Amino acid sequence: MTKAPTNPAVPLRVVDLIRKKRDGHELLREEIEGFVSGYTRGEIPDYQASAWLMASFLRGLNTAETAVLTDAMLRSGAILDFSHFSARKVDKHSTGGVGDKTSLVLAPVVAAGGVIVPMISGRGLGHTGGTLDKLESIPGFSVRLSLKEFDHVLATCGCSMIGQTAEIAPADRQLYALRDVTGTVECPPLICASIMSKKLAEGIDALVLDVKTGSGAFMKKEEDAVFLAKLMVDTGARMGKDMVALITDMDQPLGHLVGNSLEVVEVIDILCGKGPQDLHDLCLELAGWMFYLGYVVKTVAEGRDKAASIIASGKGLETFRRMVELHGGDPRVIDNPALLPQAHGKFDLVSATKGYVGSIACESVGTACVILGGGREKKEDAVDPAVGIVLHKKVGDAVDSGDPLCTVHYNSEDRAARSKALLESSFRIADAPPATRRPLVHRVIQSSEAKP
Amino acid sequence: MTKAPTNPAVPLRVVDLIRKKRDGHELLREEIEGFVSGYTRGEIPDYQASAWLMASFLRGLNTAETAVLTDAMLRSGAILDFSHFSARKVDKHSTGGVGDKTSLVLAPVVAAGGVIVPMISGRGLGHTGGTLDKLESIPGFSVRLSLKEFDHVLATCGCSMIGQTAEIAPADRQLYALRDVTGTVECPPLICASIMSKKLAEGIDALVLDVKTGSGAFMKKEEDAVFLAKLMVDTGARMGKDMVALITDMDQPLGHLVGNSLEVVEVIDILCGKGPQDLHDLCLELAGWMFYLGYVVKTVAEGRDKAASIIASGKGLETFRRMVELHGGDPRVIDNPALLPQAHGKFDLVSATKGYVGSIACESVGTACVILGGGREKKEDAVDPAVGIVLHKKVGDAVDSGDPLCTVHYNSEDRAARSKALLESSFRIADAPPATRRPLVHRVIQSSEAKP
Repeated sequence: MTKAPTNPAVPLRVVDLIRKKRDGHELLREEIEGFVSGYTRGEIPDYQASAWLMASFLRGLNTAETAVLTDAMLRSGAILDFSHFSARKVDKHSTGGVGDKTSLVLAPVVAAGGVIVPMISGRGLGHTGGTLDKLESIPGFSVRLSLKEFDHVLATCGCSMIGQTAEIAPADRQLYALRDVTGTVECPPLICASIMSKKLAEGIDALVLDVKTGSGAFMKKEEDAVFLAKLMVDTGARMGKDMVALITDMDQPLGHLVGNSLEVVEVIDILCGKGPQDLHDLCLELAGWMFYLGYVVKTVAEGRDKAASIIASGKGLETFRRMVELHGGDPRVIDNPALLPQAHGKFDLVSATKGYVGSIACESVGTACVILGGGREKKEDAVDPAVGIVLHKKVGDAVDSGDPLCTVHYNSEDRAARSKALLESSFRIADAPPATRRPLVHRVIQSSEAKP
Repeated sequence: MTKAPTNPAVPLRVVDLIRKKRDGHELLREEIEGFVSGYTRGEIPDYQASAWLMASFLRGLNTAETAVLTDAMLRSGAILDFSHFSARKVDKHSTGGVGDKTSLVLAPVVAAGGVIVPMISGRGLGHTGGTLDKLESIPGFSVRLSLKEFDHVLATCGCSMIGQTAEIAPADRQLYALRDVTGTVECPPLICASIMSKKLAEGIDALVLDVKTGSGAFMKKEEDAVFLAKLMVDTGARMGKDMVALITDMDQPLGHLVGNSLEVVEVIDILCGKGPQDLHDLCLELAGWMFYLGYVVKTVAEGRDKAASIIASGKGLETFRRMVELHGGDPRVIDNPALLPQAHGKFDLVSATKGYVGSIACESVGTACVILGGGREKKEDAVDPAVGIVLHKKVGDAVDSGDPLCTVHYNSEDRAARSKALLESSFRIADAPPATRRPLVHRVIQSSEAKP
């Protein structure tokens, strides 16, 4: 991109800004800021904003422009201030996957280790699950705290998990709604600005990014995940935050349980020192980085050990119980997960042949859960907390003919039938296990500033 | 561009259409038609249309898509039917220039030669003049005829010149207004569809395009002019019209007079067998092609001769007088051009040095005329018919120190001063005349179908 000469004395004409980006020139700070504030105040109409978004989608925004856009969107709303907590404030963000319930494990474990975790999360998007939907499957749990209540929960148990409030990054809310209907969603700089403007509003010192790649991720190709990860790490670092991104595998569901209340069950399992290996390992890896960036350990390995001992001591589970209580949720679900919403019907999907699971079409499993009602086909749909899928076999596992591959928990025969057809085509049974195993963590991308 | 698979049974989702073009895929006929009709009916909001326009601007539309878009925009309104005239119907369109008054010469000359010329013209755009503004400088001349009156004038004198009506290509009117404010004007396929949808609504058999190139044209570079010319010729040919495009020079003003009533004076000069050589030659060239595509001559050269003899016989002038009368204009201006609006003040701009005119910044001369009031700085501005610029020297002419380069006709001292500063920097005086002369016609682009 080339720099175009501009005269800052001349007031912003939106059509000139659109043309400048259309022609591949770098925008000035005041131009981007003028666009974001003008759009947020309703002075720039949607039709000009959407032309600018498409020009930015196709011409790109460089790292400097992305940081300015993020900053402008961040400053469109309130920026929380948790400087009254002496501990470091560290959050984690995932780009979304299937069976990814790590946030519910990490927040209490990392808080129990002395780091403040002020987590503002989202709902399920497309085939992926959402942290808020999972939390709301706990009877009584409210994700709509006021900022004052949020502060109180943080002060009491070190972590709190809420939804985006009206005060946080209103520019993102407006721009995201426009991107959704104008084909300008899948654009790394716009994704980066959207995520980072919300996360940086949390008043955090550091952020651990879990950027998913594989068949169940939004970024199917690792290079695309790496590109977005670098952009987010760079953007956060430019704004003075300690940043790290882990490129992690989402080529099959994470853990064994997919669906809102089912995933809470698996979270409790992990916090009890049980649960599936892949989910356990990823939680320890991410917690290790959060402790490291929280300045409570000297190495990531030490952080992993700390997380393991917090889980073993039961302190992670206790902090989770405390957080559930403080959010109005029923803490009895922790000792008796049967109190979580239960589906009325179940059926097993069995293997027709003997062999090994060669692959699981991860996005299809996520879509099957959406079809069951565990996610939203349309924005205004309500989510059914009880439905989901229990995987009995994962990639590489040996299967006999007649072995159950998964159990479907459903509340509607019609939806069950639709999800069954999709799940049947999702498991590929091979004669031998895959020759190579995909690693859990593909790559770590750290900003040079991300040092304690 | 690659073809993407689509299922025509699935109804059009606008966001999918935007994404398809965004990703560089070719759109299907029904997709483009659905977009144009949906937008024209108000079912597709501006913000989606503008995202589509920007995606089309940056990803391009191929010749097939451009033809479909043109056709859909054409069919958004009425298509005139002049099949009751046995003669061929041929029009000319210019992409716009400075001092380009050829339409006012061509319509009567070609009509006098037995071809019907149903001309729907536009107003001045940016630094360029507009045919309608020139015609309206004739006292009483109305460019707002009903379609019935238009037909009557054509039947009576063979030519008529009107403005776009509400019935003609409403999709273009709506899309053009949106393009104007979203930075999506300068896009050859969209320009082509805009021009051709209006021209093809005239019910013509053939069209001669005058695509300008040089410092006073919208397409400064010849390659850009050629690209647009080929696209328009191809689009017209696909729709069964005989097409030719002449790439002509607009590196200095055409003729000597720039400004609305001044240009009518020069038109009358040409029709009287006088007037400047360049304007005369270009009129003959374009008339030659119109006669050729009107099937009244066997070669373009024969067409040029026919135009010259019509002018010499006075039949061109008589047809012009008749058309002026039929449009309600005062025909006495033809014998007494002093009846045209006259500016109150005049001043000469003189050369400070001796030498030769090396170049004339053509766009600046056009802008100087706009500043004087001869064009519009804002859309809602009224045009002053009397003001303008009389060039005494053109490129290559010898000048002495103190020689007048041009005379400015003005009605406002303030505007005169602003235009003077611009004009002073427009003439470059060199020690020697330019080594090479730019040709009047750079290239001729004909469709293979453009044969009688």
